[in-house]
Amino acid sequence: MSWEDKVRDVVPYIPGEQPKFADMVKLNTNECPYPPSPMVAEELKLMKAEDYRLYPDNESTQLVAALASYYHTDSDHIHVGVGSDDVLSQIFLTFFSGGEEIVFPEITYSFYEVWANLYKIPFRKAQLNEDWSLNPDALKAPGGVIFPNPNAPTGLYEQESFIRRVTENNPDCVVVVDEAYIDFGGRSVAPLTDEYDNLLVVQTFSKSRAMAGMRIGFAIGNPKLISYLKAVKYSINSYTMSSAAIRLGVAALRDEAYFKKITGDIMSTRERTKEELQRLGFVFPDSMANFIFARYPGIPGKELFELLRSQNIFVRHFDTEHISDYLRITIGTDEQMDRLLDFLRVYLG
Amino acid sequence: MSWEDKVRDVVPYIPGEQPKFADMVKLNTNECPYPPSPMVAEELKLMKAEDYRLYPDNESTQLVAALASYYHTDSDHIHVGVGSDDVLSQIFLTFFSGGEEIVFPEITYSFYEVWANLYKIPFRKAQLNEDWSLNPDALKAPGGVIFPNPNAPTGLYEQESFIRRVTENNPDCVVVVDEAYIDFGGRSVAPLTDEYDNLLVVQTFSKSRAMAGMRIGFAIGNPKLISYLKAVKYSINSYTMSSAAIRLGVAALRDEAYFKKITGDIMSTRERTKEELQRLGFVFPDSMANFIFARYPGIPGKELFELLRSQNIFVRHFDTEHISDYLRITIGTDEQMDRLLDFLRVYLG
Repeated sequence: MSWEDKVRDVVPYIPGEQPKFADMVKLNTNECPYPPSPMVAEELKLMKAEDYRLYPDNESTQLVAALASYYHTDSDHIHVGVGSDDVLSQIFLTFFSGGEEIVFPEITYSFYEVWANLYKIPFRKAQLNEDWSLNPDALKAPGGVIFPNPNAPTGLYEQESFIRRVTENNPDCVVVVDEAYIDFGGRSVAPLTDEYDNLLVVQTFSKSRAMAGMRIGFAIGNPKLISYLKAVKYSINSYTMSSAAIRLGVAALRDEAYFKKITGDIMSTRERTKEELQRLGFVFPDSMANFIFARYPGIPGKELFELLRSQNIFVRHFDTEHISDYLRITIGTDEQMDRLLDFLRVYLG
Repeated sequence: MSWEDKVRDVVPYIPGEQPKFADMVKLNTNECPYPPSPMVAEELKLMKAEDYRLYPDNESTQLVAALASYYHTDSDHIHVGVGSDDVLSQIFLTFFSGGEEIVFPEITYSFYEVWANLYKIPFRKAQLNEDWSLNPDALKAPGGVIFPNPNAPTGLYEQESFIRRVTENNPDCVVVVDEAYIDFGGRSVAPLTDEYDNLLVVQTFSKSRAMAGMRIGFAIGNPKLISYLKAVKYSINSYTMSSAAIRLGVAALRDEAYFKKITGDIMSTRERTKEELQRLGFVFPDSMANFIFARYPGIPGKELFELLRSQNIFVRHFDTEHISDYLRITIGTDEQMDRLLDFLRVYLG
């Protein structure tokens, strides 16, 4: 037997492209079209190379405290990581590795299946309702439950009562709500983690806080859940958060006015884009996220994707069952959306 | 069965303290006593908050290319991660998870055992020679082999012929040489990865490049090994390296003169410290790393550790079998070592 026979067999997640063309309209990876808060820029100016000489604070104390204060809770309810993917991967390893089946929606963030395969976790995909909304009763499993709210890539949002129902349906395993897109009109269920000791809420700085390049994500849950998660984190890498991530993350949380302003702008642009797309004949679920998942009846998704690409307009296409005719279009600035809409108007007209 | 019964059972690695006192002498976590290269400071000045808005390049193309060029190889021989711990954790998951026993030295980096437990990998600890040097024939196992060179916390260095022997003894599994401390007088076996398709070499920017706070580590190996490792990385987190880590890492690699200067200074300080410690009556293996692992006959390690601590001098003590009477003393500046030595001279005199 050679060393190659012992290699872990995986099918990795494929991230969206990060093209770098002048004049491109990048609407493919759900980043924020506006820069991070000016307070982040200020903090960055204060950072010196010497600040990177020592290991970072492995507890990320200041960032954790800033998050705790922002969410009106205590530091022992918070765990941070290198983007929410880092946190989610740790969650799969910590809470979903008991050998029992877990469940996530049939159409959802495709990384869930990748983590399940990586850690050899049996899983089932829950059927959606006909309108692609989540079916709370299908989200039941002995090993664990995970879903995004709003769901991705549909953008559909579920109310607090839905989360309560799923959590109460699954008292004997951990229920994870992935709130990567919660800041575009939804309301976080973070406060519910005080009521349910098996509920974990995960968020990211990559979308609404415009800091995808800094890699910051976090989980909120009761202290027992968080301490188990930390034990696994400390069994992987003592120092995951760079000194820069800790400091710039704190700075971002300070600027609530800016956060409200840019998320508000993105929501306005989204609603206007929905109207225009509908007028053009596109069909899409009613997104509460910073993207719209749309198809144009009669034109295959891949064709439209390539066509936009040829115009230097990058959107995301998933060559997957059920959704291959859809494009996931990130909400950019009004100008960026106009470039997309202007082109579509001419092309489809 | 409650959710708690399904939690992964781990005993995490305990990192050294990161105390923050004015006037402290921090010799406990093997950081570099000198700041990163001025070229890092220059690059940092060029970075803007806007640079963090988009996701980083998930391939870390520029950093990988800079490392490839530095090591006279091609980019497909290089894999980068959030410190060498991130890379090592991925290596355990990728190559050591076939169910067969792996081996590492009895006295070594204590994280190896933590990763083995985390990923449920059976392991054996190889006995050392009486002088604590590694025994090449004991480092044989069906599932994989890993050891640091120089070894930690002994600091003892093995020659290339040793690495060849261990690699040739284990043709059917992956052999990992953890070169975290190679830049303080040792010679990397990275070139041997062209000869042996099962050899992986891991290094870090945390010690000799003075960038522990930025979190950069990497592996060098043949393209097949690297591609397997990348597949697992892409199954954990698409974007591990922040935009800052990529850019500042590249800047650090550019300044070879500075790198030679600070590692040379650390080696001189180490040799002088060895002489002084020996004169005082300390006993220690002959370290080729940026630390000295020493004991003072007749004084328990813990006692000496606490005593130094009371003087605001922080060193590392491991409360572990065989080594509990030793202190791992990082090589700082000459001034820092003088503070340590002056105190010891008075106390022991």
